[in-house]
Amino acid sequence: MADSRQNPLILVVHGPNLNMLGKREPEHYGNRTLEEIDAALHAKAAKLGLEISTFQSNHEGAIVESIQKAVGRVQGLIINPAAFTHTSVAIRDAVLILDVPTIEVHLSNIHKRESFRQRSYIADIATAQISGLGASGYIYALDALAQLIT
Amino acid sequence: MADSRQNPLILVVHGPNLNMLGKREPEHYGNRTLEEIDAALHAKAAKLGLEISTFQSNHEGAIVESIQKAVGRVQGLIINPAAFTHTSVAIRDAVLILDVPTIEVHLSNIHKRESFRQRSYIADIATAQISGLGASGYIYALDALAQLIT
Amino acid sequence: MADSRQNPLILVVHGPNLNMLGKREPEHYGNRTLEEIDAALHAKAAKLGLEISTFQSNHEGAIVESIQKAVGRVQGLIINPAAFTHTSVAIRDAVLILDVPTIEVHLSNIHKRESFRQRSYIADIATAQISGLGASGYIYALDALAQLIT
Amino acid sequence: MADSRQNPLILVVHGPNLNMLGKREPEHYGNRTLEEIDAALHAKAAKLGLEISTFQSNHEGAIVESIQKAVGRVQGLIINPAAFTHTSVAIRDAVLILDVPTIEVHLSNIHKRESFRQRSYIADIATAQISGLGASGYIYALDALAQLIT
Amino acid sequence: MADSRQNPLILVVHGPNLNMLGKREPEHYGNRTLEEIDAALHAKAAKLGLEISTFQSNHEGAIVESIQKAVGRVQGLIINPAAFTHTSVAIRDAVLILDVPTIEVHLSNIHKRESFRQRSYIADIATAQISGLGASGYIYALDALAQLIT
Amino acid sequence: MADSRQNPLILVVHGPNLNMLGKREPEHYGNRTLEEIDAALHAKAAKLGLEISTFQSNHEGAIVESIQKAVGRVQGLIINPAAFTHTSVAIRDAVLILDVPTIEVHLSNIHKRESFRQRSYIADIATAQISGLGASGYIYALDALAQLIT
Amino acid sequence: MADSRQNPLILVVHGPNLNMLGKREPEHYGNRTLEEIDAALHAKAAKLGLEISTFQSNHEGAIVESIQKAVGRVQGLIINPAAFTHTSVAIRDAVLILDVPTIEVHLSNIHKRESFRQRSYIADIATAQISGLGASGYIYALDALAQLIT
Amino acid sequence: MADSRQNPLILVVHGPNLNMLGKREPEHYGNRTLEEIDAALHAKAAKLGLEISTFQSNHEGAIVESIQKAVGRVQGLIINPAAFTHTSVAIRDAVLILDVPTIEVHLSNIHKRESFRQRSYIADIATAQISGLGASGYIYALDALAQLIT
Amino acid sequence: MADSRQNPLILVVHGPNLNMLGKREPEHYGNRTLEEIDAALHAKAAKLGLEISTFQSNHEGAIVESIQKAVGRVQGLIINPAAFTHTSVAIRDAVLILDVPTIEVHLSNIHKRESFRQRSYIADIATAQISGLGASGYIYALDALAQLIT
Amino acid sequence: MADSRQNPLILVVHGPNLNMLGKREPEHYGNRTLEEIDAALHAKAAKLGLEISTFQSNHEGAIVESIQKAVGRVQGLIINPAAFTHTSVAIRDAVLILDVPTIEVHLSNIHKRESFRQRSYIADIATAQISGLGASGYIYALDALAQLIT
Amino acid sequence: MADSRQNPLILVVHGPNLNMLGKREPEHYGNRTLEEIDAALHAKAAKLGLEISTFQSNHEGAIVESIQKAVGRVQGLIINPAAFTHTSVAIRDAVLILDVPTIEVHLSNIHKRESFRQRSYIADIATAQISGLGASGYIYALDALAQLIT
Amino acid sequence: MADSRQNPLILVVHGPNLNMLGKREPEHYGNRTLEEIDAALHAKAAKLGLEISTFQSNHEGAIVESIQKAVGRVQGLIINPAAFTHTSVAIRDAVLILDVPTIEVHLSNIHKRESFRQRSYIADIATAQISGLGASGYIYALDALAQLIT
Repeated sequence: MADSRQNPLILVVHGPNLNMLGKREPEHYGNRTLEEIDAALHAKAAKLGLEISTFQSNHEGAIVESIQKAVGRVQGLIINPAAFTHTSVAIRDAVLILDVPTIEVHLSNIHKRESFRQRSYIADIATAQISGLGASGYIYALDALAQLIT
Repeated sequence: MADSRQNPLILVVHGPNLNMLGKREPEHYGNRTLEEIDAALHAKAAKLGLEISTFQSNHEGAIVESIQKAVGRVQGLIINPAAFTHTSVAIRDAVLILDVPTIEVHLSNIHKRESFRQRSYIADIATAQISGLGASGYIYALDALAQLIT
Repeated sequence: MADSRQNPLILVVHGPNLNMLGKREPEHYGNRTLEEIDAALHAKAAKLGLEISTFQSNHEGAIVESIQKAVGRVQGLIINPAAFTHTSVAIRDAVLILDVPTIEVHLSNIHKRESFRQRSYIADIATAQISGLGASGYIYALDALAQLIT
Repeated sequence: MADSRQNPLILVVHGPNLNMLGKREPEHYGNRTLEEIDAALHAKAAKLGLEISTFQSNHEGAIVESIQKAVGRVQGLIINPAAFTHTSVAIRDAVLILDVPTIEVHLSNIHKRESFRQRSYIADIATAQISGLGASGYIYALDALAQLIT
Repeated sequence: MADSRQNPLILVVHGPNLNMLGKREPEHYGNRTLEEIDAALHAKAAKLGLEISTFQSNHEGAIVESIQKAVGRVQGLIINPAAFTHTSVAIRDAVLILDVPTIEVHLSNIHKRESFRQRSYIADIATAQISGLGASGYIYALDALAQLIT
Repeated sequence: MADSRQNPLILVVHGPNLNMLGKREPEHYGNRTLEEIDAALHAKAAKLGLEISTFQSNHEGAIVESIQKAVGRVQGLIINPAAFTHTSVAIRDAVLILDVPTIEVHLSNIHKRESFRQRSYIADIATAQISGLGASGYIYALDALAQLIT
Repeated sequence: MADSRQNPLILVVHGPNLNMLGKREPEHYGNRTLEEIDAALHAKAAKLGLEISTFQSNHEGAIVESIQKAVGRVQGLIINPAAFTHTSVAIRDAVLILDVPTIEVHLSNIHKRESFRQRSYIADIATAQISGLGASGYIYALDALAQLIT
Repeated sequence: MADSRQNPLILVVHGPNLNMLGKREPEHYGNRTLEEIDAALHAKAAKLGLEISTFQSNHEGAIVESIQKAVGRVQGLIINPAAFTHTSVAIRDAVLILDVPTIEVHLSNIHKRESFRQRSYIADIATAQISGLGASGYIYALDALAQLIT
Repeated sequence: MADSRQNPLILVVHGPNLNMLGKREPEHYGNRTLEEIDAALHAKAAKLGLEISTFQSNHEGAIVESIQKAVGRVQGLIINPAAFTHTSVAIRDAVLILDVPTIEVHLSNIHKRESFRQRSYIADIATAQISGLGASGYIYALDALAQLIT
Repeated sequence: MADSRQNPLILVVHGPNLNMLGKREPEHYGNRTLEEIDAALHAKAAKLGLEISTFQSNHEGAIVESIQKAVGRVQGLIINPAAFTHTSVAIRDAVLILDVPTIEVHLSNIHKRESFRQRSYIADIATAQISGLGASGYIYALDALAQLIT
Repeated sequence: MADSRQNPLILVVHGPNLNMLGKREPEHYGNRTLEEIDAALHAKAAKLGLEISTFQSNHEGAIVESIQKAVGRVQGLIINPAAFTHTSVAIRDAVLILDVPTIEVHLSNIHKRESFRQRSYIADIATAQISGLGASGYIYALDALAQLIT
Repeated sequence: MADSRQNPLILVVHGPNLNMLGKREPEHYGNRTLEEIDAALHAKAAKLGLEISTFQSNHEGAIVESIQKAVGRVQGLIINPAAFTHTSVAIRDAVLILDVPTIEVHLSNIHKRESFRQRSYIADIATAQISGLGASGYIYALDALAQLIT
């Protein structure tokens, strides 16, 4: 992650199992792969005059550290914490430390799934939440951050 | 609401007190008026090849009937039920009868507000939810419906 | 609602969305229209030596007032509050003021549906409840009121 | 219980303490005895072209077995589980095995009594519930089953 | 509601079924009519050098709008939301928009009644609450507002 | 159970597993057998000028019927429902029908045991409860009933 | 407390920490001292033709005993139990023994503070509650008692 | 409290408001005064070869200290904590320190009263509980302690 | 149940409605009859050098007594309490009295079914639980008991 | 993990701290080491004509990835998630993606331990659960999978 | 408590039953007496250049007043409210009025004891909490206050 | 971590995000870095005749393993689990396996923060807890362990 650039930098974090996108359960997550989503985000960022840095991990600690490293370097955060949405206070704490405009994205509508997915450790500290719009949710989030930052 | 047209028609419903937008509590809702939001939606719809019909009411019964009247006429619904989100089973039932792709929009991030605002009678029957992106939330919802319908 | 007659008068109140009966969701409500139900009630009332007055509204306030107007004029109440069953304290208070034998009717078995439909603001102040017998539930309710009144 | 007849057969099950009907607590249950109720049901069944078989027991196991024996022999079930409504999963399981249209009847309005009487292990698997209409509730239930079966 | 006067103006809102005051259930509400209460309030206001505007409705939407219309015109609010106390988030939002000293009045002591009347959507945003003093509660509320405003 | 006698008759009911008394778990129930307890009760009754009839069963239905048969014949009830304390509404209903002074006895202190043993379907309809005094609890209950009856 | 007088006597009880009034936390309790409030109450009582006896203590037992001593001597009670509102069943029991018209007063609006302050052991046995009107609440309570007694 | 005697000593503690016994609310507590109950206990103790020391207070701290002083001096405790049953952890802690056989007594059946009276801070650390037998409950408790100690 | 043998004896208890196995609802319970399961258990027992005694009942009391009779005679217990799992404290108490290694078996995975089936009165006093392996669950339980006993 | 074989392959996953087996707390987990358990599983698999691949980790992310890598390669899963049973939604999601017959194994009976161990994120998506049979639980699970697969 | 000194003054408050320290239950509280703890605190205070004033009471009201008297005189508070931790809102209110750095001390680890000891009315208004370190907890608290004040 | 030494060894574990100390949110955590805290601990340990080994990780699994490796090597544990306090059963299980005196430390007073921070999976198995004393909390914990061990 370079730290001397001119375009604002946005960190995009994908949580556990999202590396399996496009391979299983298309009824929940659509059939685009994570690589395709990241490519679409890079294209959109270029149009908006932004840089993005994307990161996926199945390890809570690795996500915590990717956010810690972004402190002082990024102007916004897009995060789809996936299963960690409901179980990770450590990621919440890292997002609080980062302290930039943050948009929480979920591919499926989490309000339609199991009840334990209603509890989010991120929603009340995020700027906004987009849930159920599939890969487009990331694009809208990037567009919205562009407006919030500039 | 005309019923013989060629472009798909989207109903946009604004709940109680949204007619006060731009006049009070800008920290929660921004300072755009509802008329300005509706105008932006019309402009966006034109680009997307959609028609929209907008409706605001402080009366639960009037909202129920606006949705009933749309049965068989509209291809999608954008609804910001505002206070009725948390109390109206009647609107939920009307949305179930309407039975078209539906996106729930909230100007502010409802997850950051009073706990009784966590209960939504709409979220689990909607296609998606956008919360906390201000007036842009409506625009993204319209864009997403265009993709869902066509 | 005439007030100088000889046969006992029964008020029949239908709550929100019941005007849509026979048009949507027949698996929950059967395929008879509200007009057909009302016609059947009138025929049954004639056999029982009763008069009935029927009323449907999507407006909570209108239902409250239809019950207020019945004070001192009717000898019994059949009410299917539909969605207002679960949210309207105002209708409950009106029923308390009316103070006549009251039977709560639901077309579908509400005990089989969403859990928030388990809460009824009417059940504990009604004389009886019939749930899940479709349009016949109204007929049985009328028959039972005839016995209670005379 | 004969198994080769022509009229449809309905099983009527009365739960614990209903053998005391007409002897105690008329304010809750009226003053008709169980024998009188059964006689009225037989008379009504004759008019409707149905056969009925009635059974009362204070023993949960005996009720379970009366329902097991009815498997493949009866076309409908009327059950007033009385106290077992709130405590018996075994009767619920037997009713699930029987798998015929089932109407749950309560003489008094259970929604008006102690809070533990609100929980029913039968209501969500029954076709319908009638509560608070006294002995007439059984008659209406029989009439409704006649319509459901034929 | 005139908007160019010299005395401070207080809006007095009465919720659903209060138009029936003095006609039913005197053990809960006393036997004074709403007209008598309003007359007493006008007399008291004259002594205090205040103007008052009174409003009653059984329609949640109408109450919302009466409060919306008062924005920028009144210096205080006395509200007895009656049944809407427990169900209306829309009225709560309107009171927040009005943003003047507000006193919630209940004729009977709501803490003695059904448990669902313990939930109030108004109590935590009001300046004060008076409950159980009958019509005098309104008079004390007016007196208290006079002190708060001047 | 004879019904033409001169001394008042007290029914003593022992619930499930109490026939095992004195054989297992003396730390909970002491080491006296049920026969010894019944003998002590008969001796005490003779001193008090009472007759007693004792009954033990592991079958809920049998206990219900032993209480039904006592209707109109006994002047008091001592009941140790054991496990049925926490699960039987049917026994509660039978005790309500019997309608005589009733004392609930537990050999061990149920407040010291599993939390589900805190719920009693008998305690709020009994005259009194004695818990934790072993076999003496029955003796005190008999003494107290003698005072209550005479 | 004299017991042979002609004017009705009202007991006024102030709970723990109210002796600190006017010295700390004026945002919750105003800046009048308890002595000033008592003086105002004496002046008001004189106008109303009442006698009052005031008592403050930080000891639950002392408050219980002040109420016990008033049995048969006072015609009304004004009580601000302060912190004991939420924790003292003993004061509740004493108020039940006293058995006179009782008005519960709180200087601040307790509905706006910590959630444990929502539970009151007094509210459901009091005649009325006034909360959030500062020292005026006592005056209104005295005025209301004058009306209730005479 | 003497500490060199030969008969075992039992401490009897009466909680708040019990000094009012026989003066108010006989439907809950009977019409015997506390002095009469203590006299009956002394007579019973004499027969059993026990000494008793009785103590009543409306002050939680005084009750705590009466139990502390008994440490090492008494062989058993009878306690009717009255309202403190439900609110005092301090008395619980003192009883734990005393560490002798303890019987909790309630004059009325607390299971029939308000729900907050169901929680006892004493029941799970006592040897036994007697509830609803009036003054006789103390006598049985003393008799039972005599058996437990000797 | 013989009591003088050399091979260890295992009691196998089947709860209510399990006599219907293989006749209904194969999706939950497979299509083997109870007789076939018992035969397989006997064959397995022979291989393991064990004796088994099997028992099925729809009566809670009969199951309690079958366990009581086994006291001192059996070295292990396999129990599928079926519906009684969730409602019977009496069976729990009998199992506690029996006091031998105990394995709870469920044919279907109870964690996938209605929420009231999550509560088990047996699980925390059993040695182990096997759920969802159909008839094989019994075989594994027998094998495991053979290891535990020898 | 080889991917071109003929025998069905079963993945066996051991959660955190299971690498310490046989070294500490034998009262909960027995005294066999994990290596011994794996050896027994390999021996059993050979008899059943299965291949197994075993994996232990204290890292949630590593377990998620071991399951992801198994997608399309294994025919069954045995998982003892240990502490992650109660806290990991990410492992649940991975198991859902894997979508093969799954058996959850616990060495000790989790129903006997702390209440937070009652919640399992795996139980309702597994085919079966075995709890409390020590190392044998794995062997039975393998045997059961062999039957399910073939 | 002198009020004209140069060293900062710390109030040390010990709650109910702590006067029994060193005499009973050493497994919970150690075997040092309260006098020895106070002596150690005086010695430590001397080293830190602080004055301390210690106070123990079994009376809630006395503790409230000891804190009230300290207003404006002390610079810090160490409080072990013992049983009052869980039941006293009055002490909470007094601590709020005092408004100085406050450290809550518990000799034993309250997180290991009964669940009702988890609720503290002091913890969320204290600066810090030390639990489970015996008498040393006080010494560390004093050391910490010295740092906070200076 | 050496295993043949003479001074007792204490393991000090710091949870996720604590590596960011001194860089962000000083209002919660002070402005000392983790390196400075560790240095202070080493200095303190030298004075006490102890060795310490410190470890920080953002990975739950790494913390579990650092504790596993300490088994049999360390005489005490100081742990600040940070966010893992509220979510990690795996760390709890590792601490149980380690089985040495353990002190839980939190820099800020967790009782003042979000409600989900009230649940600790460590508190009830730790020897003691220190919360809200900043970096000094570690020093006191080390001092206390020195006393506990020696």
